[in-house]
Amino acid sequence: MPLTNHQVRLAARPSGLPRATDWSLTTEEVPEPAEGQFVVAVSHLSVDPAMRGWMNAGASYIPPVEIGAVMRAGAVGRVTASAHPGFAVGDDVYGMFGVQEYAASDGRGVTKIDTSLAAPSTYLGALGATGLTAYFGLLDTGRLKEGDTVVVSGAAGAVGSMAGQIAKIKGAGRVIGIAGGPEKCRALTEEFGFDAAIDYRAGNVRRALREQTPDGVDVYFDNVGGEILDDVLTRLALGARVIICGAVSQYNETQVRGPANYLMLLVARASMTGMLVFDYVDRYPQALAELAGWLKDGKLVSREHIVRGGVDAFPETLLMLFDGVNTGKLVLALEGS
Amino acid sequence: MPLTNHQVRLAARPSGLPRATDWSLTTEEVPEPAEGQFVVAVSHLSVDPAMRGWMNAGASYIPPVEIGAVMRAGAVGRVTASAHPGFAVGDDVYGMFGVQEYAASDGRGVTKIDTSLAAPSTYLGALGATGLTAYFGLLDTGRLKEGDTVVVSGAAGAVGSMAGQIAKIKGAGRVIGIAGGPEKCRALTEEFGFDAAIDYRAGNVRRALREQTPDGVDVYFDNVGGEILDDVLTRLALGARVIICGAVSQYNETQVRGPANYLMLLVARASMTGMLVFDYVDRYPQALAELAGWLKDGKLVSREHIVRGGVDAFPETLLMLFDGVNTGKLVLALEGS
Repeated sequence: MPLTNHQVRLAARPSGLPRATDWSLTTEEVPEPAEGQFVVAVSHLSVDPAMRGWMNAGASYIPPVEIGAVMRAGAVGRVTASAHPGFAVGDDVYGMFGVQEYAASDGRGVTKIDTSLAAPSTYLGALGATGLTAYFGLLDTGRLKEGDTVVVSGAAGAVGSMAGQIAKIKGAGRVIGIAGGPEKCRALTEEFGFDAAIDYRAGNVRRALREQTPDGVDVYFDNVGGEILDDVLTRLALGARVIICGAVSQYNETQVRGPANYLMLLVARASMTGMLVFDYVDRYPQALAELAGWLKDGKLVSREHIVRGGVDAFPETLLMLFDGVNTGKLVLALEGS
Repeated sequence: MPLTNHQVRLAARPSGLPRATDWSLTTEEVPEPAEGQFVVAVSHLSVDPAMRGWMNAGASYIPPVEIGAVMRAGAVGRVTASAHPGFAVGDDVYGMFGVQEYAASDGRGVTKIDTSLAAPSTYLGALGATGLTAYFGLLDTGRLKEGDTVVVSGAAGAVGSMAGQIAKIKGAGRVIGIAGGPEKCRALTEEFGFDAAIDYRAGNVRRALREQTPDGVDVYFDNVGGEILDDVLTRLALGARVIICGAVSQYNETQVRGPANYLMLLVARASMTGMLVFDYVDRYPQALAELAGWLKDGKLVSREHIVRGGVDAFPETLLMLFDGVNTGKLVLALEGS
């Protein structure tokens, strides 16, 4: 009896938060690898805010997931069959394998990972696109300098928790994280080494920012957009750099809230710049070596929020991001894998 | 009988468009210069959108004009009395002399101008802060490269008309101006050498931009903000630079419209950067030499919209900027001066 491959496919384009009816669950036979292909048994799926954007129609930095297609997802797994000269059965790999138990691949965009150095899920977090996004966003787009005051929003999330830690490692003067709720705020200061945390659910973010950034904000790493972006814009220091990495507060809005305080860019002669990690692929090896070194030395804490379940748990797991449930990298570990 | 000095003072902080009651007209004796001072008879006042911002309370890049103070204004004039070793009676000068007929000065921020090279009003426009703003905004903040597609809003205005011309001189591939009404649009292409003009009053700016910028927009020089900024954001090419120079559509709004399409910065890995000309004061001489050379060679057209009247004409003249009446630099030439 052939093995079955359970998959989650996009059934409809959501308006607002994705609902159960926007997904379909399908079952196929596990493919046999064609010549030049291999097959991967997926063990861990990366669950990211950006996925919400991929579900929308229209041009973006990456084509939308087509209706009826397996939902796009970064994932790690192990090669179970191969007709590809570069990949052997038993190899542990990372790639965009999608929300399914098995994926056939021709190797494009696939990298081998060393699970003796770090757990597979870490290659979705600190040693994956998450860590790289924080690294290049902060150091390249944000041009972090020693002594800078850095503010990170979505600071308890995957990219945010990395960005704050990298800022400290690289000599930032003061690093303030914005997150929702006392538990996350405690994690920021006690686990991730932020100098201070601001709980946006507790109210007046603007006043808290005034208190916590007496000399203004040199670098703002924005993962959330919306009102918090507007609050931070009022605190920009001269020549500040705002990194637009994401806008999780806006992804499910039918009408995006633009930053009404954007003219503070003029007052502060500051910049706001969008970044995407894919642009840095040539520099991944150097960055990953540095990230791995910090992990090994205990300077960098990789925290993953791991949900265990079948691929059918993906739709609910995705919603956790928008409810602000997770601290650290949200990962769906496939049961039985 | 001593000479009288008519002045326009800020009487109240406006909400929305400034009204007559926001101003007061005062008359003083023309001052005698104290030791280290000189007195200037003002001949031409610069009338700029930024003035509206100076009338608001609160921190900005420059302190607000205090209630009861003479309205701040860049101006040119001639020295009529001097107890300053560096300035002699008869010298033509530029400085922030304010909306008044005579000003005493200690020379700080005052430069001598050569009225045999260009008319006094040109030192408020092409050879003044206007030309310098366009120059540094485009070349430094905008990092203009040869072949770039450049879009300028408020393109028939003082800074906009300079920015478009400088872009062409510096090798931009295609320069498109956005302005209001057929006359201004005609001036853009026939007088200022833009490749194309978009009349925002005629309707669909977004469609016109699609037609006029088939390869997207590399540099956007924004003087207006609002809906036009949002329209241009949808057209950004990869790595585009948006220069935030002003936001004339928003200065009289009690609630600024933030750019809802700001996440296009992420899609295009683009930047939006605020600029102020004062930051480049060390480089003024080199820029002014280049601007003067272009003027002399006929490569750069300096157009001034000159209103003649007393200082009491200032309040109405300022409103012309927000009605979009002027093409080129708006100047109030003081009658009898």
